[in-house]
Amino acid sequence: MVGLGPGDPGLLCPLARAALASASAVVGYSGYLDLLEPEVLEGREVVSTGMTGEVERAGRAVDLALAGRAVAVVSSGDAGIYAMAGLVLEVLEERGLLERVPCEVVPGVPALAAAAALLGAPLTHDFACVSLSDLLTPWEVIERRLDAAAGADFVLVLYNPRSKRRADHLERALAVIARHRGPDTPVGVVCRAFRPGQRAEIARLADVDCGGVDMQTIVVVGASSSRAAGGRMLTPRGYAGKYDLAGGTRKVRQRLANTRSKA
Amino acid sequence: MVGLGPGDPGLLCPLARAALASASAVVGYSGYLDLLEPEVLEGREVVSTGMTGEVERAGRAVDLALAGRAVAVVSSGDAGIYAMAGLVLEVLEERGLLERVPCEVVPGVPALAAAAALLGAPLTHDFACVSLSDLLTPWEVIERRLDAAAGADFVLVLYNPRSKRRADHLERALAVIARHRGPDTPVGVVCRAFRPGQRAEIARLADVDCGGVDMQTIVVVGASSSRAAGGRMLTPRGYAGKYDLAGGTRKVRQRLANTRSKA
Repeated sequence: MVGLGPGDPGLLCPLARAALASASAVVGYSGYLDLLEPEVLEGREVVSTGMTGEVERAGRAVDLALAGRAVAVVSSGDAGIYAMAGLVLEVLEERGLLERVPCEVVPGVPALAAAAALLGAPLTHDFACVSLSDLLTPWEVIERRLDAAAGADFVLVLYNPRSKRRADHLERALAVIARHRGPDTPVGVVCRAFRPGQRAEIARLADVDCGGVDMQTIVVVGASSSRAAGGRMLTPRGYAGKYDLAGGTRKVRQRLANTRSKA
Repeated sequence: MVGLGPGDPGLLCPLARAALASASAVVGYSGYLDLLEPEVLEGREVVSTGMTGEVERAGRAVDLALAGRAVAVVSSGDAGIYAMAGLVLEVLEERGLLERVPCEVVPGVPALAAAAALLGAPLTHDFACVSLSDLLTPWEVIERRLDAAAGADFVLVLYNPRSKRRADHLERALAVIARHRGPDTPVGVVCRAFRPGQRAEIARLADVDCGGVDMQTIVVVGASSSRAAGGRMLTPRGYAGKYDLAGGTRKVRQRLANTRSKA
């Protein structure tokens, strides 16, 4: 199970490239396989299925492995974050093969890291990832998680924020988060990070334009301390309270406080 | 700001390698610079400081950039997840340089993805990352986040779980989580993922051995649906309820349910 990274060949790890090179069959969603340079797949049997064919893909991969083939099951981003690694292991388990078929997960640069890099540094402090897809998770569970994470002041990373069939999910999710955050909270919207068509924008929570958001978008909603600055989105870790950042030194009042507490 | 990945040269992205190659100065924590093959740093000015020298490192990096140098500030894992990208941007902002000094974030394979890959697939569903370091965050905030995320059934990824000065943090964090999870909940403990000395173990929540845990460890606590199977840790996405995973087909009762709802 191989994570391809966000799409840019510069973010495909050598270990992932080697795994593809040593595989005789590559199984994946066609949209992800298209991100690879053609030579990476040259000479390999390629099994691609549509977006919702995950179970079929995992089954085909296991069949090929049982036939003695070295198989790479690919996901974009990381192989384990909302991705195929789990399903392949589940299919192996269900067929009683989990301990018989050797398999490894090759991690990759996840979409959340790619999106954050384009926004600046929104994930420097605690964050929670929530998928807004209710295909496999009841919406009530999703809403409960959004509410809890926003209430405890996590930065929120939203996967699968909006599809044609779920056109209002992002709007509903932002409304839940807005119970706990002010209208000026920065929200980063990153479409197709490190892919053709890349777009990164920062908006106020009250003004997010959900219209352009699709399934290849990651939305990052700031914590209470997050802010926009110079076209970037930042979530300070807390150094500014303890250090003089311009001077690179510990703040004097902090030093005094420490001295006092030792006395 | 460049993410080096977990340490294995196979997980250092080509884009990160290119950023290091084009830099004339490389700034980083000595423990991370040691992970790089020596030739990557050859011919470059290397500015390394100890573990807690982040503010000094960021300041030195900005000074070098102002002197006209191309500077790479490195972090292990991803450059933005609990890492240096945010601090460098804050220092630039504080010195009024944020819009004057061009800078980019090159994402990397974060520690959370590296750890998850070695465990199996614990992050296939919603998860929350919490750092247990209270150097910059009050422990009450940390505990509140653990409680909220566990209560909303997130998988929990714990960074900085235990240091010499904070020997009891992991124990205290697991006790908070145990308010919401059974004693059999799987907990993955991964030390030095994709580095020399790598070790990955799965324990029951009630039996986690905190003794061997250090700052180079990531701890992953399962959601209520997570389970251990065949030496792996899995968090099912929910396919098993809708599909016959062994047969690769949609479950009949599901098909019937769909037919009925259309009728």
